[in-house]
Amino acid sequence: MTAPAPLPRPDDVLAAAARIADRAHVTPVLHARTIDEAAGCSLHFKAEHLQRAGAFKFRGACNAVWSLSAEVAARGVVTHSSGNHGAALALAAASRGIVCHVVVPEGAVAAKLAAIASYGAVLHRCEATMAAREAACEQLRSQTGATLVHPYANRDVIAGQGTATLELLHQSVLDALVLPVGGGGLAAGAVLALAHASPRTRLVLAEPSGADDTFRALETGRRVESQTPATVCDGLRALLGAPNFELLHAHRSSDGAPVEVIRVDDAATIAAMRRLAVHTKQLVEPSSAVALAAVLAEPARFAGLRVGVVLSGGNVDPDRLPWLA
Amino acid sequence: MTAPAPLPRPDDVLAAAARIADRAHVTPVLHARTIDEAAGCSLHFKAEHLQRAGAFKFRGACNAVWSLSAEVAARGVVTHSSGNHGAALALAAASRGIVCHVVVPEGAVAAKLAAIASYGAVLHRCEATMAAREAACEQLRSQTGATLVHPYANRDVIAGQGTATLELLHQSVLDALVLPVGGGGLAAGAVLALAHASPRTRLVLAEPSGADDTFRALETGRRVESQTPATVCDGLRALLGAPNFELLHAHRSSDGAPVEVIRVDDAATIAAMRRLAVHTKQLVEPSSAVALAAVLAEPARFAGLRVGVVLSGGNVDPDRLPWLA
Repeated sequence: MTAPAPLPRPDDVLAAAARIADRAHVTPVLHARTIDEAAGCSLHFKAEHLQRAGAFKFRGACNAVWSLSAEVAARGVVTHSSGNHGAALALAAASRGIVCHVVVPEGAVAAKLAAIASYGAVLHRCEATMAAREAACEQLRSQTGATLVHPYANRDVIAGQGTATLELLHQSVLDALVLPVGGGGLAAGAVLALAHASPRTRLVLAEPSGADDTFRALETGRRVESQTPATVCDGLRALLGAPNFELLHAHRSSDGAPVEVIRVDDAATIAAMRRLAVHTKQLVEPSSAVALAAVLAEPARFAGLRVGVVLSGGNVDPDRLPWLA
Repeated sequence: MTAPAPLPRPDDVLAAAARIADRAHVTPVLHARTIDEAAGCSLHFKAEHLQRAGAFKFRGACNAVWSLSAEVAARGVVTHSSGNHGAALALAAASRGIVCHVVVPEGAVAAKLAAIASYGAVLHRCEATMAAREAACEQLRSQTGATLVHPYANRDVIAGQGTATLELLHQSVLDALVLPVGGGGLAAGAVLALAHASPRTRLVLAEPSGADDTFRALETGRRVESQTPATVCDGLRALLGAPNFELLHAHRSSDGAPVEVIRVDDAATIAAMRRLAVHTKQLVEPSSAVALAAVLAEPARFAGLRVGVVLSGGNVDPDRLPWLA
């Protein structure tokens, strides 16, 4: 209905950082000697699982909410997500005192819905198809005037996610940065932050083998428009967004290296999750552990380097913790 | 063979803090709004599971190792522990470049032995009885001249463990302090640190119902000399040590309150462990989670207070993580 918004730029990440500074946590960088020895490189784990609402998603949601004019904000925000973006947008809206509508599909995990509701969002049920979710969002938008905040294909969201990388680059000098890719909000934001703060750092994406549209898109130069994801990484099942693809496709480090993608089997992701639990005492979700799994799967690419690894979130399904049940 | 060493005093904790300052981590204090709401008080979690070697035990071991004269240290140290103290003493000895002998019982968890060996200790197998372990220690001591560093009934160890409480009292103002009790090194050290830094803070111990000798000892005024522990808290199965009992029995806060003990069932401990995993993303061992479980079991004792909770260690048995297997 409207022309695509222009792509966000590095300056937008700096503006986002200022906008969210008093609202988001500065997350720590963790180290683990034992994992460094196994990986053959020096790992800098950015602990975004300790971010507010348990994932980096709060950065983008917070930037989007606080970028709205007072008049527009007063009509609220709307999204469809039963995962981390839904919780993040609910919390961000609460921080501004505005209403947040979240469209959630039938069959969504009860614990996740409870988290979203606990931040004060209004939940709207719909059928569990993408078409039904988008239609419900559109209906709410037209009825209420609420602003749609897409989970990743949104310039304010991308700029906000870029602050995770910007902050890490202020904390650690890095030869390479590895992060998970699903819809590509974190990855596209990293492109902007790296261009500003550390152009020589290589960007490497970790993607589940069972949802590898980003790998294929960057290989062929054409965005993939459908896939049937098969992975335990519930945060990485979405298709790479259009602006996200454009930013990643065009990106080069200062020595000309394009964005790399490493595909990881779920078994390796779960092994990495276990390694993080044992050696750092941190519980992260599979969608985060995939980044460490990528480093361990391709050690030659990282030998001796200083490598940033974004632990993107820690919102595991409690029912997946039988040992703690 | 020798008269009991005099009890450690508050000044010994200050000396220990100076001695280990460049060798141990200053661990962070964590907060979780959701758990505060459930508990009805303000919780300050002291993250000793992020201490070197994964537990507060490194503080006492490090203080003991660095308290030795150069001549005595050169003959090494010895202990019997297949758990956190063994690993802590091995790492502390490595920090001084001296040999560490660890007597380990047949049947000990392989992962724990591997951790101890990875810090450079020499392992000595023996039968899985306390008599066999003590005999093996004594034989090594007499053969090598190594100094025995008992896991908890040792004044340098107690003073070192007291630095965890001292550090927490510099980080947070507390009305009450809750920590797990097994042999009593952490608890006895807390008595000394509280006397120096915050006499009005109440001291509350959390003990597994299946190994409640400290509860009984403080009720009757007489140390218990044997029990058959039945608890998943593998770090809390030991009997309260003699000097540890003396310090705890004599302790009063500045308004006259004696040390309290709350007994906790294993099911409540596991529930607390799960709550910490979900809401703080931290993986702690059951022997640590017992402290939060105690607060949640007796909320009236803590209503509205500022409560310190020591997360004493994070060395879970990887085989107890089936979900991550």
